[in-house]
Amino acid sequence: MKKFFADKNGDFFVFAGDELAHFNVVRCHLGEHILCYGENNLDYICEVVSIDKKCAKAKIINKQKNTKNPKINITMYQGMVKGEKADLIVQKLTELGITNLFFFESEFTVAKGNNNKIDRLIKISKEACKQCGRSIPLNIGEYPKFESMIKSLSQYDIILFANEKDTFRNLKDIKNYKNIAIIVGSEGGFSDNEISQINSLNAVSFGLGERILRAETACIATASIIGYILGV
Amino acid sequence: MKKFFADKNGDFFVFAGDELAHFNVVRCHLGEHILCYGENNLDYICEVVSIDKKCAKAKIINKQKNTKNPKINITMYQGMVKGEKADLIVQKLTELGITNLFFFESEFTVAKGNNNKIDRLIKISKEACKQCGRSIPLNIGEYPKFESMIKSLSQYDIILFANEKDTFRNLKDIKNYKNIAIIVGSEGGFSDNEISQINSLNAVSFGLGERILRAETACIATASIIGYILGV
Repeated sequence: MKKFFADKNGDFFVFAGDELAHFNVVRCHLGEHILCYGENNLDYICEVVSIDKKCAKAKIINKQKNTKNPKINITMYQGMVKGEKADLIVQKLTELGITNLFFFESEFTVAKGNNNKIDRLIKISKEACKQCGRSIPLNIGEYPKFESMIKSLSQYDIILFANEKDTFRNLKDIKNYKNIAIIVGSEGGFSDNEISQINSLNAVSFGLGERILRAETACIATASIIGYILGV
Repeated sequence: MKKFFADKNGDFFVFAGDELAHFNVVRCHLGEHILCYGENNLDYICEVVSIDKKCAKAKIINKQKNTKNPKINITMYQGMVKGEKADLIVQKLTELGITNLFFFESEFTVAKGNNNKIDRLIKISKEACKQCGRSIPLNIGEYPKFESMIKSLSQYDIILFANEKDTFRNLKDIKNYKNIAIIVGSEGGFSDNEISQINSLNAVSFGLGERILRAETACIATASIIGYILGV
């Protein structure tokens, strides 16, 4: 069933703007049953009842709990990467059940943060939601500097640190945690000073094998592994 | 140190064609120390001794074992996917330590196999090798049909089957195996008949969570998880 982020209005969902464009691209027709993502973890089965140039409407005929949203709060702090890599990370982390994503700037990051681009990334996450069945997109925060990231890390139960200088480690003990932060560096990695700041937070440091992974590979691989361990 | 696949000739490595182009793109200069991947798992430290339009040469000054090649034989059978997704899979599986890759055709695959494209994919894997430090590229075989794949699966110690209809499963028991096949479907998944053929091989079926993953996400996530469990 085709999936949408539309605006709920009483017993109807209303499609306008980008969502109407998507509605047209996937060729929705009158009488078709579609799925609209609603609030409070609810998915609404709707029937398309009107389509015109500026707006389309679908009437709610049933609702059900969404079972595909992440069950554990996992926040990815990823060293800033350039355009296409950021897009890929957003799409994949959405599919892999990560809750929050912050691209951060550190000493060796080359790409620069641009909060104007967040809307675009959220759109990519919404598209990924429609494909994977999740109704709550990745929450993408404004790009912190390394120091702000370090300050915000105190709110998590556990901090996992993908450290290229470390070796593989059995992470099964993380199963007991419900609010997890993961740190993955950019291509340039971290300065010694930054690594010692991360370590001073009692972060659990782990490697991803002998090979030097691209930043986006490390990020997606880490999300896959943590997702597998936690069953998100 | 910059890394190359060049031709060994006595005490020298010789750069021509594509590899000479790469040599120029990364701006190698006379006297520079570079690393050339050799046979038998050996990396050669070399010094650039001559550069001209048609050829460059580097003299071997030392050699060392490559520690970044996969230590376990893992073969990925991936349902055929289209161009860019195939490129992404090849790059990521190289980084993640997979040994062999076969894109197969099955009932619901839309993309068609084209053995002419294998050379291009090998080139992508070689580029990934230079980045991640691995000296043996992914071995990419000709594209089998589903039936040939099924026949070839008898040669493995264990077959893992990423099955979207299954749930997460603890895979730690795979640690004892040294020759492993993984099957990941294309977007269309498998027909019931195909699933029963895979199951009749005593494949270990496992899910990747509640969400519907794109084919390339399932492939990269599976490689990440298996790599983590085996420490490849």
